[in-house]
Amino acid sequence: MELNVGVIGTGDIGAEHVRRLSAEIAGARVQAVFDVDADRAAALAAEVGAVAHKTAQDLIDDGEVEAVLIAAPSPVHAELTIACIEARRPVLCEKPLAPTSEECVQVVEAESAAGARLVQVGFMRRYDEGFQRVKRAIDDGSVGDVLLAHCVHRNAQSPPFFRSEMLLTDSVIHEIDVARWLLSDELVAARVVVGRKSPLAPDSLLDPQLVLLEAASGAVVEIEIFVNCQYGYEVRCEVVGSVGTASLDLPSTGVLTTAGNRSAPVPLDWKGRFGQAYRDELQEWVKGVRQGIVTGPGAFDGYAATAVAEACVKSLQTGDRALVSMTPKLSGP
Amino acid sequence: MELNVGVIGTGDIGAEHVRRLSAEIAGARVQAVFDVDADRAAALAAEVGAVAHKTAQDLIDDGEVEAVLIAAPSPVHAELTIACIEARRPVLCEKPLAPTSEECVQVVEAESAAGARLVQVGFMRRYDEGFQRVKRAIDDGSVGDVLLAHCVHRNAQSPPFFRSEMLLTDSVIHEIDVARWLLSDELVAARVVVGRKSPLAPDSLLDPQLVLLEAASGAVVEIEIFVNCQYGYEVRCEVVGSVGTASLDLPSTGVLTTAGNRSAPVPLDWKGRFGQAYRDELQEWVKGVRQGIVTGPGAFDGYAATAVAEACVKSLQTGDRALVSMTPKLSGP
Amino acid sequence: MELNVGVIGTGDIGAEHVRRLSAEIAGARVQAVFDVDADRAAALAAEVGAVAHKTAQDLIDDGEVEAVLIAAPSPVHAELTIACIEARRPVLCEKPLAPTSEECVQVVEAESAAGARLVQVGFMRRYDEGFQRVKRAIDDGSVGDVLLAHCVHRNAQSPPFFRSEMLLTDSVIHEIDVARWLLSDELVAARVVVGRKSPLAPDSLLDPQLVLLEAASGAVVEIEIFVNCQYGYEVRCEVVGSVGTASLDLPSTGVLTTAGNRSAPVPLDWKGRFGQAYRDELQEWVKGVRQGIVTGPGAFDGYAATAVAEACVKSLQTGDRALVSMTPKLSGP
Amino acid sequence: MELNVGVIGTGDIGAEHVRRLSAEIAGARVQAVFDVDADRAAALAAEVGAVAHKTAQDLIDDGEVEAVLIAAPSPVHAELTIACIEARRPVLCEKPLAPTSEECVQVVEAESAAGARLVQVGFMRRYDEGFQRVKRAIDDGSVGDVLLAHCVHRNAQSPPFFRSEMLLTDSVIHEIDVARWLLSDELVAARVVVGRKSPLAPDSLLDPQLVLLEAASGAVVEIEIFVNCQYGYEVRCEVVGSVGTASLDLPSTGVLTTAGNRSAPVPLDWKGRFGQAYRDELQEWVKGVRQGIVTGPGAFDGYAATAVAEACVKSLQTGDRALVSMTPKLSGP
Repeated sequence: MELNVGVIGTGDIGAEHVRRLSAEIAGARVQAVFDVDADRAAALAAEVGAVAHKTAQDLIDDGEVEAVLIAAPSPVHAELTIACIEARRPVLCEKPLAPTSEECVQVVEAESAAGARLVQVGFMRRYDEGFQRVKRAIDDGSVGDVLLAHCVHRNAQSPPFFRSEMLLTDSVIHEIDVARWLLSDELVAARVVVGRKSPLAPDSLLDPQLVLLEAASGAVVEIEIFVNCQYGYEVRCEVVGSVGTASLDLPSTGVLTTAGNRSAPVPLDWKGRFGQAYRDELQEWVKGVRQGIVTGPGAFDGYAATAVAEACVKSLQTGDRALVSMTPKLSGP
Repeated sequence: MELNVGVIGTGDIGAEHVRRLSAEIAGARVQAVFDVDADRAAALAAEVGAVAHKTAQDLIDDGEVEAVLIAAPSPVHAELTIACIEARRPVLCEKPLAPTSEECVQVVEAESAAGARLVQVGFMRRYDEGFQRVKRAIDDGSVGDVLLAHCVHRNAQSPPFFRSEMLLTDSVIHEIDVARWLLSDELVAARVVVGRKSPLAPDSLLDPQLVLLEAASGAVVEIEIFVNCQYGYEVRCEVVGSVGTASLDLPSTGVLTTAGNRSAPVPLDWKGRFGQAYRDELQEWVKGVRQGIVTGPGAFDGYAATAVAEACVKSLQTGDRALVSMTPKLSGP
Repeated sequence: MELNVGVIGTGDIGAEHVRRLSAEIAGARVQAVFDVDADRAAALAAEVGAVAHKTAQDLIDDGEVEAVLIAAPSPVHAELTIACIEARRPVLCEKPLAPTSEECVQVVEAESAAGARLVQVGFMRRYDEGFQRVKRAIDDGSVGDVLLAHCVHRNAQSPPFFRSEMLLTDSVIHEIDVARWLLSDELVAARVVVGRKSPLAPDSLLDPQLVLLEAASGAVVEIEIFVNCQYGYEVRCEVVGSVGTASLDLPSTGVLTTAGNRSAPVPLDWKGRFGQAYRDELQEWVKGVRQGIVTGPGAFDGYAATAVAEACVKSLQTGDRALVSMTPKLSGP
Repeated sequence: MELNVGVIGTGDIGAEHVRRLSAEIAGARVQAVFDVDADRAAALAAEVGAVAHKTAQDLIDDGEVEAVLIAAPSPVHAELTIACIEARRPVLCEKPLAPTSEECVQVVEAESAAGARLVQVGFMRRYDEGFQRVKRAIDDGSVGDVLLAHCVHRNAQSPPFFRSEMLLTDSVIHEIDVARWLLSDELVAARVVVGRKSPLAPDSLLDPQLVLLEAASGAVVEIEIFVNCQYGYEVRCEVVGSVGTASLDLPSTGVLTTAGNRSAPVPLDWKGRFGQAYRDELQEWVKGVRQGIVTGPGAFDGYAATAVAEACVKSLQTGDRALVSMTPKLSGP
């Protein structure tokens, strides 16, 4: 039988997940949805043949719901994830696991107390074929010892509610998780450099920013985050090792040559760029949950990423290098 | 509810379809399989929780089977497809629809007699994002009037049973369908040029071959088919118009730079290259069948492709340009 | 001391050669020029500090002129080249050596009678770094036995005087020479296929054309010539061997990403594309002549190319495959 | 008449200049050479038909020498350049103009006192077609306001005498000059970050290093310098503006596809990568000097680059951000 999934949060990304689960994922169906905007939830529920619940807890408690996907705003992530753990529901929580590492610790401890692996965090880049190829080139020794990584993360325009810290907590958090995963290492310090502000970014937004992360091995991960680059969505990553480098390719399916130019389109947003990764993330999660296992990035990964993002925010605020503060006694998954 | 699919033929590609339907396609499950190799069918049936039937007709007659996928050898394609039509089962038949245009005509007429669109032919390239981009560049006028197309179709090694005609009927038939679809035009003549034979191809195999197809508009489609190129699987297509050109990009997810070289892997086979297209083909077919419609390439497309392939074979045998012989009174879908 | 060069013909390409010899080539200076347009010749002579002669023969007879470069119209190439041979002047004649193979034979015989290697033909592509890399990949065995080659030769617009045969005698002649040189083989037959005419080509011009050349080894060289492609100048070449392929890269020095597109400029004409090749051709020729040797493509190469072009023209006129007619007793350089 | 050039220093790069001037540059010849290794100088002088002088001053004083190229070790650059200025010889001095900004100031003041533009510094990247294209994209407004730049500078192996500071003073100095030139701005602060050391770099060498330069506009230039990357020589530059980005392309003349890989060679060293730039630098310099003008990067550019490199060294030594100290009253060229 198909896995009955409940989805909390039906905004931009939540609605995308609901539609993808219904139309593209084998072995799953959306059983229930919830959103604080009841009309939005009801409309989407009708579209995919699901129930719209009155509260998130109702959804979690729904006996028909076998697994939960949380795409609500970040501030309620920890609380909802813990509620899922308490109901012993496997849960896929969109990143970040929580805005503060303190809340993340609570999630890790709740899962630990439950004595079962239940939580996955939506770091979908680990499912991208390009990032996976980079990881294989590291893991099989092709590039030697990893010394540096260069990352670029650009969005065409930032949403209206974006603040300077969110470039770190909501955008760079992807690079933080990727760096930990690629390097199989923890990040121990962060430095954020802010230079010339784009005249096209909102007045209060420090955009772009340059982030330097230090791994325990000493490797340095350098990241450009620029959320008002205007031209499109672009994610790049090059890992520099002692004998070679491995890079993502910019995705391209075709080239048009006209009027003196050879050109390829740049994706407009993350949907165009990471469709394959989101689909594989969901498919793997559904497949695993039906078999009783969760294999993706877990609560500890969510905690570690938030802890590093907190160090980034501290560096942004102080102008100095900031150490990452992590509780060592927390065991990872 | 999920669509119950029966799959006839569980060889290389048949097994791939069965597994993909079970693991990656929303809204479908494999209800039954059949193969002349009963053990192979039984093992695959057990793997995905399906029934293994004793004959193809038993599968078609199975009241639980709502749609049929035919991946049996080409010589039985027409017969099986007609049996599906008679049972009013929507059917996705792997290419070619039949080895002879005469048989294809019988399928087209059977479907016409049934008074319903039931047949889709497995020309999965129409679902490839790269080919779709090329088509958009033609359809939106970006390249102007199409004058020429250059295609390359290379396999690392040919299977042992391959004969010289099969480069045309089993491989180039993909380019034939793509050409008809991209150009929105019929192909009216063919010429096959055979030059120097690869020393690594089997003795009896004329490999590579160069094929020139003429469209009704006068546009010429030039195709290299080379099924023992050794290095990997590669498909290329460039459409040349009066004001520009549109090309597929070679797929690449990453680049490795070591020891004086920057390199990207070439897919080993069509599974690596066309995974996205096969999946989208199946997903679209399943989605459509559940809604009572078939939208992909149909019986007439299968007929037209085989008729053009027959002209290619005639040219290969005679050394002369051969006209495509098609029955004009057959109406397309 | 610098080599005193006389240049006959100061039109587009002749003027380019004069200026390049003066400004970019070590060890050479332009001593004299001649053109039927005396004013044009005088102006250019003044610009570079050369003498303008009243006739081509005067230039050849000028005791100060040590070597001659012929950039006059094709019909007078043979006559002028023979005059240079008779004056024992090393001569670099722009391609084609002559419009007819009959005239080319006269040049080969004149040089043979002179008993010295004096003639070089302006097939500058042999000096292009990209073509040289392709040749190395063939010569060092990287691609195995050469089976096929695919060439593309596109110009944005054709000059007003262009006729359908000139696509073969003036444009494809470059590919003919390249094919002979890359394959280290003679071309024995030609077939020209004309399909849909570009609506943007002049009425009387059959453009584009597809040319198939057969080498003695059986290898087939397929060439698209399209002289009104509108978008720019593009030359491509891929050699397909039994174990691999070698291709030119499209030249690119930079990429611009703006407004949803990543784009690289296409050169407008051959000057932008082959500047490095023209310069190296001249520099090598000057260096060699000063040392008393001529190392580039010679009179026999010019003859062979014209003979193949004649077969192409015959095929264009008859619609049939045409054999190349070459005098075997003529010895190559 | 050809310009008679004297070359001081006939080591690796000096010998390259001597041979290039003799074999590839129009309007120049090497009249004299000097090297502390008299045998090496004599051999090279014999090769190109030049005189070998006993001292650098003898060469500068040689009445036949019309212009001087300095490729001696950095510590004597300033002294020799000033000697040329005093002899009123146009002089092209290899980078850096001097190891210390103090010496550079003396050169600037000497030239100022001479009242004539005589000095050019060998920042040959300004002549690279790729960098020129990036500059055009900035200057014509294509990328908007420049906010960031990402640079990569990798060598396969460092020479035995290399010390950690030299990654900054001898390698990054190229990026420093390029940044000033591309951004049309001064650099005001530097920060050097050293992370994990390559196990293949010499023990005492901090390699790689990450350099952050701040322009007066606030734009940040981020540079990876890695002189033991093993795989080859690679230079990259991407400028990020408010509406787009402009990048160098990695140079490639051809692609080879064999055995599951599509690959392009990486240049082994700067000679392979910047041949065109070195040649155009020399050709432009020779042409200008013959016309009595010097147009390339001048003494002030040399001074500014060294001043920025000094700030980099200070940051490397202290671990802190360092301000660039420049004398504002010195007027640029």
